[in-house]
Amino acid sequence: MKFCSECGQGVTARVPDGDTHSRFVCDHCQTIHYQNPRIVAGCLAVHGQQVLLCRRAIEPRRGYWTLPAGFMENGETTEEAALRETWEEARARLQQQELYMLFNLPHINQVYMFFRGDLADLDFSAGEESLEVRLFHEHEIPWDELAFPTIGKTLKQYFIDRQVQTFPIRIRDILYRPGQTRR
Amino acid sequence: MKFCSECGQGVTARVPDGDTHSRFVCDHCQTIHYQNPRIVAGCLAVHGQQVLLCRRAIEPRRGYWTLPAGFMENGETTEEAALRETWEEARARLQQQELYMLFNLPHINQVYMFFRGDLADLDFSAGEESLEVRLFHEHEIPWDELAFPTIGKTLKQYFIDRQVQTFPIRIRDILYRPGQTRR
Repeated sequence: MKFCSECGQGVTARVPDGDTHSRFVCDHCQTIHYQNPRIVAGCLAVHGQQVLLCRRAIEPRRGYWTLPAGFMENGETTEEAALRETWEEARARLQQQELYMLFNLPHINQVYMFFRGDLADLDFSAGEESLEVRLFHEHEIPWDELAFPTIGKTLKQYFIDRQVQTFPIRIRDILYRPGQTRR
Repeated sequence: MKFCSECGQGVTARVPDGDTHSRFVCDHCQTIHYQNPRIVAGCLAVHGQQVLLCRRAIEPRRGYWTLPAGFMENGETTEEAALRETWEEARARLQQQELYMLFNLPHINQVYMFFRGDLADLDFSAGEESLEVRLFHEHEIPWDELAFPTIGKTLKQYFIDRQVQTFPIRIRDILYRPGQTRR
């Protein structure tokens, strides 16, 4: 951020009076510009023994496989966001979806929420942001070609929980440690 | 938003190519400015049969009682945000906290997350944003003087769940219906 979105003058980064964090502050109109984490919402769509994955048509990680997911928009609930993304990326509809995985990713200021549910029908197809959408059995999952760490962790947890048919909401922190490759 | 935060030129609201939502777009430097929901994180701090409430020293709802909570910051997890807010507003520390209530509030673009945990000690006090902090038994709760709908709903659910000592993560949508008074 370089300019104030309210008055167009330059902003400076500093800790405002009474605050504990550095903010972009406009010294012209006094607006304090807060920046906060964003929610990524998506779905783990299940059909019998198979799960639905999308191959990304866009960067980052174009060509890699993902669960349908994307940034939550203003004016919707987390569940609505997850279902909308699943429709946009996989033209798929779910039924009886429930929150399943919540990931904190503080190094990229994101909170992921994946809902688990059954595919309502097999009438799915690649949306504009997908090259391909298909169902995978566990032994077919392209583990080395998954787009993001959250995807593999969700799938692995699901295949474990599926054995006992119990799917509690699970919360995981994915922390960036210096020296690791960031994704 | 009136000006581009990257180049300082005026922005216009329109649906960018390939998008489905209206955004503030800069026709000078082509930046698309996305706006997304924010997470409010807080704690339901328990001590025996009592719960901790703070009386707000700031607007909105100055003078009304709340659970300690506030906007999640970049660089932290939801749990860290909840514990930080509890420290800032009530100088209280928790132990064994777990996610308890998640509220979607799409009409104000917020997602609330309350963690439930035991007070680590009784060494709490009003932080800068609180007039007063104290413990309440169920029959003492100032139901008509609670700051926000999320607070009353969390407390009511807790007193129900406490009877059976089972605290599943609960998800609620609070939807604004035209004709209601907004808070």
